[in-house]
Amino acid sequence: MHQRRFEVTTLGTGAALPARGRYPSSQLVNVHDGLYLLDCGEGTQERLRSLGVNFIRIRRILISHLHGDHYLGLMGLISSMHLMGRKEPLYVHGPPLLKEIIDIQLRASATWLRYPLHFPPLVPENGLEVFADERVRVTALELRHRIPCTGFVFTESPALRSLRKDMVHMIPHFKRQAVKQGEDLRFPDGPHYTNAELTEDPPPQRRYAYCSDTAYEPALVPFIAGVELLYHEATFTEMLRARAKETMHSTAAQAARLALAANVGQLLLGHFSSRYKSSEELLNEALPIFTRTLLSDEGMTFPVNPRSIV
Amino acid sequence: MHQRRFEVTTLGTGAALPARGRYPSSQLVNVHDGLYLLDCGEGTQERLRSLGVNFIRIRRILISHLHGDHYLGLMGLISSMHLMGRKEPLYVHGPPLLKEIIDIQLRASATWLRYPLHFPPLVPENGLEVFADERVRVTALELRHRIPCTGFVFTESPALRSLRKDMVHMIPHFKRQAVKQGEDLRFPDGPHYTNAELTEDPPPQRRYAYCSDTAYEPALVPFIAGVELLYHEATFTEMLRARAKETMHSTAAQAARLALAANVGQLLLGHFSSRYKSSEELLNEALPIFTRTLLSDEGMTFPVNPRSIV
Repeated sequence: MHQRRFEVTTLGTGAALPARGRYPSSQLVNVHDGLYLLDCGEGTQERLRSLGVNFIRIRRILISHLHGDHYLGLMGLISSMHLMGRKEPLYVHGPPLLKEIIDIQLRASATWLRYPLHFPPLVPENGLEVFADERVRVTALELRHRIPCTGFVFTESPALRSLRKDMVHMIPHFKRQAVKQGEDLRFPDGPHYTNAELTEDPPPQRRYAYCSDTAYEPALVPFIAGVELLYHEATFTEMLRARAKETMHSTAAQAARLALAANVGQLLLGHFSSRYKSSEELLNEALPIFTRTLLSDEGMTFPVNPRSIV
Repeated sequence: MHQRRFEVTTLGTGAALPARGRYPSSQLVNVHDGLYLLDCGEGTQERLRSLGVNFIRIRRILISHLHGDHYLGLMGLISSMHLMGRKEPLYVHGPPLLKEIIDIQLRASATWLRYPLHFPPLVPENGLEVFADERVRVTALELRHRIPCTGFVFTESPALRSLRKDMVHMIPHFKRQAVKQGEDLRFPDGPHYTNAELTEDPPPQRRYAYCSDTAYEPALVPFIAGVELLYHEATFTEMLRARAKETMHSTAAQAARLALAANVGQLLLGHFSSRYKSSEELLNEALPIFTRTLLSDEGMTFPVNPRSIV
């Protein structure tokens, strides 16, 4: 069956003080061609532009927390969408103070947006639904950081059932959609096929979990268990474990241990401290603990692959 | 005489919706090796970093007005200076609401700055002093825009008097500084030289005027008359003169006419609308009106040259 698109593009992989050439946190998630933005550090709109993304297509923006490296690009993006003529509502899910921060800046610039801007309240509570639409359902993760911080789990909507190759010729074209949706097939004065005879189970729903800034938090395991792709911050190596604890960040080894405990498909590392000129050091620490570890680089796209092909 | 450094580096030359590869407004002004930042659009800190500027050296930041393309990079810069260990006070001159905007964001991120941050009130009134230190005196310009908008005139501090080449051998080393400062020279039981016999007039104080977003405003002429370098926005060409009027911006021709009326040394154009893929079109409109016109490009440095060498 044709695989529906579900992928993550990392726009920024730096930490609070980005190294030259690295950008603060932001990711673009594409679920079945619907675009969602995860965090929006300074310069995100410029990165979207340079990747050729028509960012007016972004449906919702999710802001994990109010450290500047995760949201300072939001005001500029909101303003550019306005100047580009956006009409569709935009939903920004973030901490309550975010609405105040945007409102005062709109007031200061005397800008009256030409599109509705909504700030649904975001509560960092494990498993709580953030939103659901026809493509995806997103739930919250309670991360452990210096200020309230929410992670997110994206679960794609279920696919239709697949028609069995040996039966597909039996099914009239105008009936195929109904059969994919689970109906039986009954010919007038003819045979009756149950749906189970005609179709196979669809591929399982894939999931992507995003853990931006957080200390090592084993309480997350039940909520991210078995996800196809886990993004987890890896600000430091174990050599700076004390600093990680103090700043409530994670080491690459801790990220890998969490991935192992949750038995995820693949682990994606990011949010690298500027002291690491190359992120290979962080990868090398994680790999012996969890082999299916990837490094996120600016502008790279990672498909959320089914477990079977990882 | 050795020319003291006085130069302008343009960090961004785009308008509200920057074209790909152009950045929003920001300029770094170096006066006698003191650094001052003029406006601070999104991504300014990244541009400073890529130019190798140690931005902790910036003494003061001047924000002309609160349209996002002129200040959205400020919060990130303030935060990075904090993370880099700044201790010296930072003065941010801008509209009153700017302090509120920064304060709410510091509160949201639970950041307690390790350096004093001051917001002296900025009043857009022609000729009013904004600040003065040992290197420069800065006065305000009242620009004409959709929201209150301040321009700035930088006047370098006067140089010391120059010792006359034919007299310098007469002046004991330990007296030279005093003579440069205007003292006479009196030898015990010996001759007496007046300062006029020993020195020549120093080079004249150079000036740089910065007119960020503004409609054509002839009332500025007396306040920028004769400046060595004038930066003036040129968002549109004359073909879009109606649009310039409506949005309270200028055309390249209007910028050139103002430069001509004020008899400035050189005119520097910037703040180009994203519709102009090349800024040559804007230059070509200005040149027939005012020949000493320059285009500002990202990362270029323009010395504030004395009139005699332009």
